[in-house]
Amino acid sequence: MNFIYELPLSVRDYELDVQGVVNNAVYQNYFEHARHEFLKHIGLNFVELHAKGYDAVVHKIEIQYKKPLLANDEFVVKVAVEQEGALRFVFHQQLVRASDHALTTTAKVTSVFMTNGRPIRPPEEVLAAVKAHQQTD
Amino acid sequence: MNFIYELPLSVRDYELDVQGVVNNAVYQNYFEHARHEFLKHIGLNFVELHAKGYDAVVHKIEIQYKKPLLANDEFVVKVAVEQEGALRFVFHQQLVRASDHALTTTAKVTSVFMTNGRPIRPPEEVLAAVKAHQQTD
Amino acid sequence: MNFIYELPLSVRDYELDVQGVVNNAVYQNYFEHARHEFLKHIGLNFVELHAKGYDAVVHKIEIQYKKPLLANDEFVVKVAVEQEGALRFVFHQQLVRASDHALTTTAKVTSVFMTNGRPIRPPEEVLAAVKAHQQTD
Amino acid sequence: MNFIYELPLSVRDYELDVQGVVNNAVYQNYFEHARHEFLKHIGLNFVELHAKGYDAVVHKIEIQYKKPLLANDEFVVKVAVEQEGALRFVFHQQLVRASDHALTTTAKVTSVFMTNGRPIRPPEEVLAAVKAHQQTD
Repeated sequence: MNFIYELPLSVRDYELDVQGVVNNAVYQNYFEHARHEFLKHIGLNFVELHAKGYDAVVHKIEIQYKKPLLANDEFVVKVAVEQEGALRFVFHQQLVRASDHALTTTAKVTSVFMTNGRPIRPPEEVLAAVKAHQQTD
Repeated sequence: MNFIYELPLSVRDYELDVQGVVNNAVYQNYFEHARHEFLKHIGLNFVELHAKGYDAVVHKIEIQYKKPLLANDEFVVKVAVEQEGALRFVFHQQLVRASDHALTTTAKVTSVFMTNGRPIRPPEEVLAAVKAHQQTD
Repeated sequence: MNFIYELPLSVRDYELDVQGVVNNAVYQNYFEHARHEFLKHIGLNFVELHAKGYDAVVHKIEIQYKKPLLANDEFVVKVAVEQEGALRFVFHQQLVRASDHALTTTAKVTSVFMTNGRPIRPPEEVLAAVKAHQQTD
Repeated sequence: MNFIYELPLSVRDYELDVQGVVNNAVYQNYFEHARHEFLKHIGLNFVELHAKGYDAVVHKIEIQYKKPLLANDEFVVKVAVEQEGALRFVFHQQLVRASDHALTTTAKVTSVFMTNGRPIRPPEEVLAAVKAHQQTD
């Protein structure tokens, strides 16, 4: 996988659940935040796209939980992206623990752009930004 | 699919994001909560199992987002479960909107029991409860 | 205090933190949800008001944590409201545990309506609804 | 106020609500995270203290919301602490927006240490760490 973006993060205590590990749902926050930061990195902005009427929407997500994250853990969220057909982007994401470089969690996220509730071809600015970034990295 | 448990819920405003829809991560809360309520329904308890040293852990989750949930939406979370091999339970879950019975979201959740960080055969009380419940429903 | 609305809720396992109690921030979710359900009860809707350009905004909140909520706890959130001056509503809220009627948490929430980032006199429909409800209860 | 710790953070899109601002409850996450990071900074650890049987518990919180945080906002959370009587610590916290140094939110948090559900005098290691830090800053 050709990861083109990495976001360093660390576990916050309020993200832990009664088992003393990061709650499963919180990983979706981590993965989403890394995708949105990646978009900013290539000149796009999720909230501004929404204001223009373009909503990037997750169609499907598959997460594999290999090892739990614990209090004080630091980690990196890696992002790769590929276009699938005319309408979809597929993000491949990996969460790697800083202390031992263990791969703790993976995600495959299929997303589409919607306008007024209908899937559309991604906006030109998005296609251009993704393409330009993939060429130069 | 033979759904053996249903939990009625409704959207809370703090679960909405800037797009005006329920944030993707929140569905994991809904699905987890329905699984834990299902466990209580068959006489088991996630938090008590943890206190006894048995942690039910999600190994893999696949979620398909078909339609978004909006403010004020009411819905039902359906739960089916099957054993897979000696070690795993697979939960099949559907989220159905109350107003029009639309299937909005599905999840397939593979879980294992762990003790001291290692996968174990599910505790007898869990196997017995699941088996008894599947026979009588 | 003249409580005019009560919302029954129960603790969800994902709301617990590593101490095995409901995380402090989650109580704000409970209190907010109860206020919004109260508004619906008197014919108002937080999300619709936002769509019309009226945002109910919390100006100040004081929460007293008297007893922790634990896994499986059921409770009621009580709501009282009074107008303060021309611009503010003050909500008084109590969280009462179902098993023993213990008062576990209290909140005093001062809110204002805003339009375009400026405080305004509450919309007539809000004033009318609050007044009508207080008279008839 | 003598602030002895500052934590830089930024808004994550999943923390925004339907009004397009950071949800009120999320500020408690920010404030809690800053307090826990402050504790680590002075050699203490919330989760480890819990494992030793000492739970730092919020008794009361007062939050004033002066200006909303929006998507992409960067900010600093400042922490001051003072002992109150034999049993309590009072944290004073300020949230300051990076772009214009505006004070957006303040919190006053009264906390106590508990063991087995009863308030106790803070552990010696906590008193020593707070005292040492206040002397040297």
